[in-house]
Amino acid sequence: MLLYSSAVSGNCYKVRLLLAQLGIEYEIVELSVVDRSNRAEVLGELNPGLRVPTLVLDDGRPLAESNAILWYFGDGTHLVPSDPYERAQVLQWQFFEQYSHEPNIAVARFWIAYSGAPERFEAELPTRMRGGYAALDAMERGLDGRTFFVGERYSLADISLYAYTHVAHEGGFDLEPYPATRAWLERVASQPGHVPIGP
Amino acid sequence: MLLYSSAVSGNCYKVRLLLAQLGIEYEIVELSVVDRSNRAEVLGELNPGLRVPTLVLDDGRPLAESNAILWYFGDGTHLVPSDPYERAQVLQWQFFEQYSHEPNIAVARFWIAYSGAPERFEAELPTRMRGGYAALDAMERGLDGRTFFVGERYSLADISLYAYTHVAHEGGFDLEPYPATRAWLERVASQPGHVPIGP
Repeated sequence: MLLYSSAVSGNCYKVRLLLAQLGIEYEIVELSVVDRSNRAEVLGELNPGLRVPTLVLDDGRPLAESNAILWYFGDGTHLVPSDPYERAQVLQWQFFEQYSHEPNIAVARFWIAYSGAPERFEAELPTRMRGGYAALDAMERGLDGRTFFVGERYSLADISLYAYTHVAHEGGFDLEPYPATRAWLERVASQPGHVPIGP
Repeated sequence: MLLYSSAVSGNCYKVRLLLAQLGIEYEIVELSVVDRSNRAEVLGELNPGLRVPTLVLDDGRPLAESNAILWYFGDGTHLVPSDPYERAQVLQWQFFEQYSHEPNIAVARFWIAYSGAPERFEAELPTRMRGGYAALDAMERGLDGRTFFVGERYSLADISLYAYTHVAHEGGFDLEPYPATRAWLERVASQPGHVPIGP
């Protein structure tokens, strides 16, 4: 199995974390998140969205979008609930992550820590910071009185939201006002088979 | 069952279209997409993301994020495949929709047709138009040689992508260069039980 991936990408990290925790072997093709000029050439036949992660199964079939890949491998394991309402709640948090969290927190992090030219994004940064803090507010409300996001058990929802939240400080976000979120981050990091972000 | 909804929102329309096609009854609470000042008061206890659609089941449990709601009602029906790879492909297109399509096409449409002040967004519009056309390019590639997005059958993926694509012209998008997408739009609109966007 082949994973087109970038070491610094939280979206790719979600997949690597899940595959590590499920003990599934794969090979990595590293792509740059800064120079994306070869994306159409490399991913054109595999992923209409031209993003990483893109996975190629052993039989050659491609799969893309980090959270969809998580479901392909996670469904049927202890990381996805069997109750229909809880399954929908996992999806609710994952769609929240891709719509309200990643475009703010991951993008601010990329601009500041990885783009090589943070000054180019100065005018747009305040909007992303506001959106990122609104997402952190929503997470803190969602974790109020809970150990994990869904059903009091570690699930794909936690993997998806952990990916960029645990490196949010690289985007200039201060998690000090978010005690429930900070405790949850530690809980996720102490799960069996946890691996850090990176190659 | 209670659906907090906005008549012009494509995200809410996804849910109304699915519930109509499945013959499920519900009541609507209409919220404005322009004046959002009462969102925390109305939705605070129901949806940490404070967005519509937000659904309250008959037993009082809330559910949010349009595509998560679709899965709650659609899974187990003819609108969700049983094959694990095809299920992941449906999710792939729905995450693509929320990340690469809606933030560009729906937002441009809102600014131009519904915000009441399109001139306020003039500086930001070109980026959203470029992103919107990139999403339409990806859809056209995804539909190449296919009748529907996944498994040659109408599924939740088609409902999710139809919602804002069929009103993309309100955001100034020209679908003329997208013949596969235009043929697919007609195919979706001719499905049994189809209802138009609106209240």
